[in-house]
Amino acid sequence: MNSLGKNFVFTSFGESHGRAVGGVLDGVPAGVRIDVDMIREALDRRAGRVAPSLEDGCAYSLEFKGEGISPRAKREKDEVEWLSGVLDGVTLGTPIAFIIRNADARSQDYDWLKHNYRPGHADQTYQDKYGIRDHRGGGRASARETASRVVAGAIAQQLLAEKKIQISARLVQVGTETNPDKFAQYIADIQKEGDSIGGVVECTITGLPVGVGEPIFDKLQSHLAYAMMSINACKGFEYGSGFSNVALKGSEMYLSNDSQLVSGGIAGGISDGNPIVFRCVFKPTASNRKTLESLHSTLNSSPNSPLASSPKVGRHDACVAVRAVAVVEAMAALVVQDFILAENQ
Amino acid sequence: MNSLGKNFVFTSFGESHGRAVGGVLDGVPAGVRIDVDMIREALDRRAGRVAPSLEDGCAYSLEFKGEGISPRAKREKDEVEWLSGVLDGVTLGTPIAFIIRNADARSQDYDWLKHNYRPGHADQTYQDKYGIRDHRGGGRASARETASRVVAGAIAQQLLAEKKIQISARLVQVGTETNPDKFAQYIADIQKEGDSIGGVVECTITGLPVGVGEPIFDKLQSHLAYAMMSINACKGFEYGSGFSNVALKGSEMYLSNDSQLVSGGIAGGISDGNPIVFRCVFKPTASNRKTLESLHSTLNSSPNSPLASSPKVGRHDACVAVRAVAVVEAMAALVVQDFILAENQ
Amino acid sequence: MNSLGKNFVFTSFGESHGRAVGGVLDGVPAGVRIDVDMIREALDRRAGRVAPSLEDGCAYSLEFKGEGISPRAKREKDEVEWLSGVLDGVTLGTPIAFIIRNADARSQDYDWLKHNYRPGHADQTYQDKYGIRDHRGGGRASARETASRVVAGAIAQQLLAEKKIQISARLVQVGTETNPDKFAQYIADIQKEGDSIGGVVECTITGLPVGVGEPIFDKLQSHLAYAMMSINACKGFEYGSGFSNVALKGSEMYLSNDSQLVSGGIAGGISDGNPIVFRCVFKPTASNRKTLESLHSTLNSSPNSPLASSPKVGRHDACVAVRAVAVVEAMAALVVQDFILAENQ
Amino acid sequence: MNSLGKNFVFTSFGESHGRAVGGVLDGVPAGVRIDVDMIREALDRRAGRVAPSLEDGCAYSLEFKGEGISPRAKREKDEVEWLSGVLDGVTLGTPIAFIIRNADARSQDYDWLKHNYRPGHADQTYQDKYGIRDHRGGGRASARETASRVVAGAIAQQLLAEKKIQISARLVQVGTETNPDKFAQYIADIQKEGDSIGGVVECTITGLPVGVGEPIFDKLQSHLAYAMMSINACKGFEYGSGFSNVALKGSEMYLSNDSQLVSGGIAGGISDGNPIVFRCVFKPTASNRKTLESLHSTLNSSPNSPLASSPKVGRHDACVAVRAVAVVEAMAALVVQDFILAENQ
Repeated sequence: MNSLGKNFVFTSFGESHGRAVGGVLDGVPAGVRIDVDMIREALDRRAGRVAPSLEDGCAYSLEFKGEGISPRAKREKDEVEWLSGVLDGVTLGTPIAFIIRNADARSQDYDWLKHNYRPGHADQTYQDKYGIRDHRGGGRASARETASRVVAGAIAQQLLAEKKIQISARLVQVGTETNPDKFAQYIADIQKEGDSIGGVVECTITGLPVGVGEPIFDKLQSHLAYAMMSINACKGFEYGSGFSNVALKGSEMYLSNDSQLVSGGIAGGISDGNPIVFRCVFKPTASNRKTLESLHSTLNSSPNSPLASSPKVGRHDACVAVRAVAVVEAMAALVVQDFILAENQ
Repeated sequence: MNSLGKNFVFTSFGESHGRAVGGVLDGVPAGVRIDVDMIREALDRRAGRVAPSLEDGCAYSLEFKGEGISPRAKREKDEVEWLSGVLDGVTLGTPIAFIIRNADARSQDYDWLKHNYRPGHADQTYQDKYGIRDHRGGGRASARETASRVVAGAIAQQLLAEKKIQISARLVQVGTETNPDKFAQYIADIQKEGDSIGGVVECTITGLPVGVGEPIFDKLQSHLAYAMMSINACKGFEYGSGFSNVALKGSEMYLSNDSQLVSGGIAGGISDGNPIVFRCVFKPTASNRKTLESLHSTLNSSPNSPLASSPKVGRHDACVAVRAVAVVEAMAALVVQDFILAENQ
Repeated sequence: MNSLGKNFVFTSFGESHGRAVGGVLDGVPAGVRIDVDMIREALDRRAGRVAPSLEDGCAYSLEFKGEGISPRAKREKDEVEWLSGVLDGVTLGTPIAFIIRNADARSQDYDWLKHNYRPGHADQTYQDKYGIRDHRGGGRASARETASRVVAGAIAQQLLAEKKIQISARLVQVGTETNPDKFAQYIADIQKEGDSIGGVVECTITGLPVGVGEPIFDKLQSHLAYAMMSINACKGFEYGSGFSNVALKGSEMYLSNDSQLVSGGIAGGISDGNPIVFRCVFKPTASNRKTLESLHSTLNSSPNSPLASSPKVGRHDACVAVRAVAVVEAMAALVVQDFILAENQ
Repeated sequence: MNSLGKNFVFTSFGESHGRAVGGVLDGVPAGVRIDVDMIREALDRRAGRVAPSLEDGCAYSLEFKGEGISPRAKREKDEVEWLSGVLDGVTLGTPIAFIIRNADARSQDYDWLKHNYRPGHADQTYQDKYGIRDHRGGGRASARETASRVVAGAIAQQLLAEKKIQISARLVQVGTETNPDKFAQYIADIQKEGDSIGGVVECTITGLPVGVGEPIFDKLQSHLAYAMMSINACKGFEYGSGFSNVALKGSEMYLSNDSQLVSGGIAGGISDGNPIVFRCVFKPTASNRKTLESLHSTLNSSPNSPLASSPKVGRHDACVAVRAVAVVEAMAALVVQDFILAENQ
């Protein structure tokens, strides 16, 4: 299903090459002025239209490399149309519905996908499950769907900011590289090779009061993991000591001065007043030149695939983790705001 | 809150040193004969009362080391009392309620916890959140609560087995050790030191048909992550390529012959017909001798803590991941059965 | 909140005088061809744009009386724009989002409502609850919101029709009148007086298999009552023997040949294979000429209400139960389809 | 399913002649002292063990007529065992689980029901739905199940009382009789005839602040109707003007001085600060002597029903609405407390 949350509920809809993507956000308090510029900025970060600064840890966006804003990012310029829930820029307490229309895509580019499945994509499972799919660019499985999440998440972030709760994510690893200063070059090299690479996004939540999280099945980490795992290409979630510290002994962890190392700001599923720190790993996209050329040549050798000769290698991100940063923030904000509403914080 | 699932709903209740722990399982089809022996066996694995075989990958249980069944495991022998939902061993389609009574604990052992918080436990966040807590052994945050999950999960496993869906978990890493043959000695050494160590549990789901999982917010991996993160001491979840393969390039992943490496049996949130493989990491317990002795000496130096002189170092698992194996299986079974019901599979 | 259902989820949004009203319908199976004409017809019935026939029991629509389609109904002609979930007229299994744009209203007609509350409307409770409201014609509390429900309900009815489940509602009482042949004249007389009157709508569900309904808190009648009570102006729900037969003794009920009289097709919360029959009562609208003139004169006597002199008496339905017929059908269809999905029927 | 509520969740379990009935109440704030006497009193009212006073409107209990406490009511004396969530009489903020053990029933009394269905009961639909049922006295469909609701509801009432919210229900009609002074004689006469009769229970909620209720699908009246319709034998719900005033014109309703007549304390789904008033109708029980004797003679004439000769006519309430009063209060309290938690009131 396509809704998230209990008291603060986000519903997402829209195929990547249909009329529009959009969402409904229910449970937004009345009387809040919406900062539309902040939402636009979040959308631009997600789309790779602004150059992320080194400061915010999201060190690099492919779209900018050498050539400024790419034609594709320009074409996709996300215009939010507000359908309900807002009057003169102020929330009414009623559901906020919004859409972002999809630009007319040259859908013939996708014709070859009618009869072929891309490796590493959800083409086949969608076809198997539904017996039908919108083959044009991934449908619901496309990263375009995350634009709706970013709009909703930005509104959640605005509500949280009023309570001094801040959520910020950044890229902390690309392939084997952990020095942010070197991410840009690393990714550029990968792209030149026609390849792609994974990365790790870290997110910090500050200002969260003690007591957020409901044992035993509404633990804070459970909901964060749930939300992160719904992001395309996310293959893992960890908080506090995570996987990385599996070799540390108990005495090393608990007797160190860095108790945050273990807890990540959560104990027993409940926030302990320290910053929450968690990380998500994103796999490399399968839509890189090398993979597609390989697929291409396989398809060409099959006499039953007349369309096989035309797979276009579109522009694709060499490291999707870069653009995922904005989505991680958005999802974390939706989760935290839902807790805040439920717990009267 | 303490319920999990939408169409197959498990509700857990009970403090570790209250009258009983127990659960209610709603949505169990009628007319199914319950295999009580299988449930007892799962409970024994969770409690460390049976020696896990090397074969099932859960290579070692502390309680057995050298001395057979420990007095504590014996005392805690879990007797399930079935309160409803079952008539003459067969399910009625109505909610199955069960309890496992807690043995009388020498609660004076816990008196010192009334006024002290253990590091690495949820003592403080519970106190902060609720303003009150059952200090006797952790209350709801105790691992004892997982006994209820194991009962419910075992029932789910029985239902899944009828559809040829098998769930099995095993220990795949202890500290730095990844050779199962060496886990027993590794853990014994840690215990002798009075220390504790983390571990990784891997779980495989076979026989799952194509099509299980509901994009975009009921993806299969989202629900698995959600359920796993609710287990005590679990600090991370990954599936398919996970964190471990962040250094692999796209071409290496997708052009390898092991496509399972990346997907873990899920694409776009939907099962692809291959085995599902995921891993969870468990931190070392903080209740080891070294940590507690350190706490002890800190407390003794505080003039305001008259009870501080009595912290007893109880028997604790040197590697909680060992006993977590049964809980991982149980939680996975609950998640999968909930999907199966919803999707009419 | 603004969502209904568990496995078949309808989310409604939109203020009556905002950009649009609309909805998202999640859980629609893939591969179903949508009958757009049937949806338009349902919308026309709700809007009073088609003359209901005596046959379907909905004997009269105010808008037609003597003068054909009213200017207001014409202006409001509901055009559905499909945003997602449908490709070439066939469902994709993804959420179906749709909107119906609102015509530009002469919003100055509503200016006097900024500072005044209409009796019998939700103006005051919305203002009290949210501290803000869309005063233009009722916002979310307006009957216009039900257009979204009718679209979603019509899709549900199409899905149910494939399983031979039919839902049909009709007007069975207007004021004291229970003879459908006389409804038209009765309502016309009330309208001439500048007054309004209540009515009773009866709904029958046929073709429902035995076994639909989940004791004890998802009984079929519970969900039907829940859905009906959400309709504007609905003040009561009954099924089977209901309120009307409170004077019958048990022997008279159960030993009669009409066992349906009592059960209404449901026993213990579960459908028994007979037609389901339930009734809803709708109060008269408060926006009739008599009530508003009275309000007008009260306001005029208050020196602090400069806007009070301008309350316009718009065209209003003398009997809202007439147009409620289409909404009752829609809500019943949403409820039943949700059960059907959950129960694999 | 068997859970009710979103933030304050009650789960019910237990068959009438199984080990126990019971429940789990999740979302109870920590630190509240439970008044066990008040719970016992509510259970006694439900069971007909205390003579309801004329004052509280529940004018009569069959069990008392002429003979004091009946043997059956005595035998069924409900002892609540608290399993979790309470320490030294004070809530812990964790789920409260409780059971009421069933007395050993002479189950041979029910043997004839193995192969026969009682008219007006859920015997057949349960059998059809589940393919199995606990034939001993109705299983989950038995009124005994409502004991769990009364325990949970009494706790909710205690929480509401702290906020000065009072819920009280009373019998306002028995058959054609609306004078409470005459209810006792009326019911006694019906009982002597070996017959049964329906009744209407009215419930008033006072002290509820303005603003409780969430349009458009979590309206206050929707949740009240939902909960009431889940009570055995309840065939209808109305609030405010309801069914009874369908003949009143708008001008008569809104220009009267009794605006409560229409609204029942709710406008647009939101409490308006006035007392909430609603009514439920309960059908006569089918288990009266006349109905069963008729069934008996039918069964005896069938050669294939060897067990047919033994249907015992147990003691049954001539008017189940009497005992329903306590259940209506309990369900209303559960609904209101769930809203109060969600709305931070």
